Amino acid sequence: MTTATLELPVEAPAAVPAPEERAEVKPKDILIIDYSGDLEKVWATMILASTSAAMGVKTRIFVTFWGLPVFVKDEKRITGENWMQRMLSLMQRPGISHRKLSKINFLGMGPWMMRKLAKQYNVASPKELLEVAQLMGVEIIPCQMTMDMFGLKPEDMIDGLAEPVGAATVIGLMTEQSVPLFI
Amino acid sequence: MTTATLELPVEAPAAVPAPEERAEVKPKDILIIDYSGDLEKVWATMILASTSAAMGVKTRIFVTFWGLPVFVKDEKRITGENWMQRMLSLMQRPGISHRKLSKINFLGMGPWMMRKLAKQYNVASPKELLEVAQLMGVEIIPCQMTMDMFGLKPEDMIDGLAEPVGAATVIGLMTEQSVPLFI
Amino acid sequence: MTTATLELPVEAPAAVPAPEERAEVKPKDILIIDYSGDLEKVWATMILASTSAAMGVKTRIFVTFWGLPVFVKDEKRITGENWMQRMLSLMQRPGISHRKLSKINFLGMGPWMMRKLAKQYNVASPKELLEVAQLMGVEIIPCQMTMDMFGLKPEDMIDGLAEPVGAATVIGLMTEQSVPLFI
Repeated sequence: MTTATLELPVEAPAAVPAPEERAEVKPKDILIIDYSGDLEKVWATMILASTSAAMGVKTRIFVTFWGLPVFVKDEKRITGENWMQRMLSLMQRPGISHRKLSKINFLGMGPWMMRKLAKQYNVASPKELLEVAQLMGVEIIPCQMTMDMFGLKPEDMIDGLAEPVGAATVIGLMTEQSVPLFI
Repeated sequence: MTTATLELPVEAPAAVPAPEERAEVKPKDILIIDYSGDLEKVWATMILASTSAAMGVKTRIFVTFWGLPVFVKDEKRITGENWMQRMLSLMQRPGISHRKLSKINFLGMGPWMMRKLAKQYNVASPKELLEVAQLMGVEIIPCQMTMDMFGLKPEDMIDGLAEPVGAATVIGLMTEQSVPLFI
Repeated sequence: MTTATLELPVEAPAAVPAPEERAEVKPKDILIIDYSGDLEKVWATMILASTSAAMGVKTRIFVTFWGLPVFVKDEKRITGENWMQRMLSLMQRPGISHRKLSKINFLGMGPWMMRKLAKQYNVASPKELLEVAQLMGVEIIPCQMTMDMFGLKPEDMIDGLAEPVGAATVIGLMTEQSVPLFI
């Protein structure tokens, strides 16, 4: 963990309305539905989640579809139980350190430049931010249906994930206390 | 409709806070802004909407831009009144059964594998989920501006859609009782 | 500014619940997190924001990642302080008038047809909508971290933007009074 990972969340909120104006309303939870496996979207998810948790806000990330293989262990190369699932993992390498941009990849130069610029300007990498987020108690919740469809087993996944759930849990959170972001 | 379509919504919510904690707050409605025509996004929309309606939550889907031609009848091949509109429909085939993935299409192999895996793991297809959603009272609301720009006529669209509306209606829902997801 | 820009917001909300039902709840603010630089997403952001402001709703747009260079002055061709930042601006031309679609670009024909259809059906361009939004008091708030990473300076940006902020401000808004849309 670099100092950069700790610099992110401490910035003071600038435009937040004064709390006394609406003291009776309980602050909400944050629920990120992480649907995408693209580098820039994973980055956004991790920056928002780690900042949110650092501010004392209960934060959950529901990881589903392309967003789920991001939380496979980095060193796993091929996942899945049948040939289709294994081919899918070959086409889209799993693991948070292997994300690509949704555009301007240019044989890897886009993501390389983006990571280099991030380092230069002290922005923590997605993997560093993930560590911070987990330390701060962000709950990362896999989608059961995607686990099944992609043939992912608990031992494929990084440590510290919550039990897989389904869409009903997500709907329940949204209609109650959580503000959702579909990323 | 297969049994799979009915299995989805009955799963019990796991992480929802106990209702007695905040009994005074009225549960919110769900509003999905369905902007994308990609297979995986349409699938997410349909799974969330049918689950939400099955839980007794008032659920609306505002279908706009690339999300609108998804609700053209499957058997319509070309839509539109002028050559530009007809060419757009040729470039992106309308209808819920003709969706492509946003990536790894590989000449159709990606979507084919995804549909095959879904069937194998009892995940209903987007079309089956759409039927369930409509039966359960999900309101599907077309965007008037997109109807105009794409030259879509009411008779091009599937049965049971609501009257087309504009952005003001969507804003009104969001600032009142609805939790929005932009998908 | 054409008459089209003014037609958009005046449409009456159709499906909004009667206000007397929940008179005690203060209407919420709208917070758009504009993450994408694609033409269709920028259009959605501008239509929703200008409509929302016209309805008297406090409206903010947080512009971040690919969404930030959209608000560079149209006439700037290259931005950035080092060669990587300058190359990024070359790969993705900045400015609201130079957006491309996320798909069916076909050497520029897709965006050209889309703009032409918009004009034909009296839909204002993103640039016209941006002017309306700014006139109506929509706050456009740059992401400080993205400013740094892309090497963008205040003088590169269009006039009238708010001071850059970070993720904590965004989280603060979401957990308080704002309904967020991640676009």
